[in-house]
Amino acid sequence: MSESRFLEDFAVGQVFAADEEYEMTPERIHAYAAEFDPQPIHLDADAAAKEIFGGIIASGWHSLSVTMRLIVHSNVFGGAPVVGVGVDHLRYLEPVRPGDRLRARAEVIDVRPSRSNQARGYLVLRVTTTRGDGTRVLTQDWTVLVQRRPESPQA
Amino acid sequence: MSESRFLEDFAVGQVFAADEEYEMTPERIHAYAAEFDPQPIHLDADAAAKEIFGGIIASGWHSLSVTMRLIVHSNVFGGAPVVGVGVDHLRYLEPVRPGDRLRARAEVIDVRPSRSNQARGYLVLRVTTTRGDGTRVLTQDWTVLVQRRPESPQA
Repeated sequence: MSESRFLEDFAVGQVFAADEEYEMTPERIHAYAAEFDPQPIHLDADAAAKEIFGGIIASGWHSLSVTMRLIVHSNVFGGAPVVGVGVDHLRYLEPVRPGDRLRARAEVIDVRPSRSNQARGYLVLRVTTTRGDGTRVLTQDWTVLVQRRPESPQA
Repeated sequence: MSESRFLEDFAVGQVFAADEEYEMTPERIHAYAAEFDPQPIHLDADAAAKEIFGGIIASGWHSLSVTMRLIVHSNVFGGAPVVGVGVDHLRYLEPVRPGDRLRARAEVIDVRPSRSNQARGYLVLRVTTTRGDGTRVLTQDWTVLVQRRPESPQA
């Protein structure tokens, strides 16, 4: 476990990314969808072939779940937990198909202290998920709670 | 598989909900987090006890995945696939803890034809996830693509 990062350690423009790809294998797409998104476009090749994407695609929530894994592995917060406040402007840009390999990155787009609690602040991260050829498949903005660095005892 | 619903079948104020609860058992919370959100607050009781929520909580993305399951089971689109365009205003309101039983509902808050494609339209659904005591744990607004009803052949 690495050291926790505090609000004061972040600045607009910083980018965090794990050196990791996650392969959306047919088995993983099926297992996730069977539990969490049981629709024919994710589970049934014949039915999916007749729908808008012409074949099986991964659940959007599966790609979002994988994105969380990749951002956790980017170690953006060091040892501190990622406490999500909300997500805005999430857009599904392209479908994710069996065999696609996902990557994710987080860019700091806002850093602000809390108005009501001097010990805390908020970070806004623009999170982008790409597939192997670099095409963006998902974008979203996360607002997360971060502790401020405790003040040193007075000398 | 029930009949597909088209844009013309939706109106602001309609509510869809499955008569289903999903229990967030310790095993499910652990299995999801191990794959998709490997942080100590979801996986390690001793570490979680020292953090902001005082014990293990479910990954927010786990609760969101379960929400998708419950909305699919509400049959909001009949047999048509749910084609997500985006998510806005997602807010994590309360933590979800082991043993919580989740429910979800979707309320239609906007219905609009596409300006660029006469065969399609957009629906905005306010999706609310609650736990057993009725407390809201998550809210979010989904924009989804829906086909318009094909015109009847002229008589």
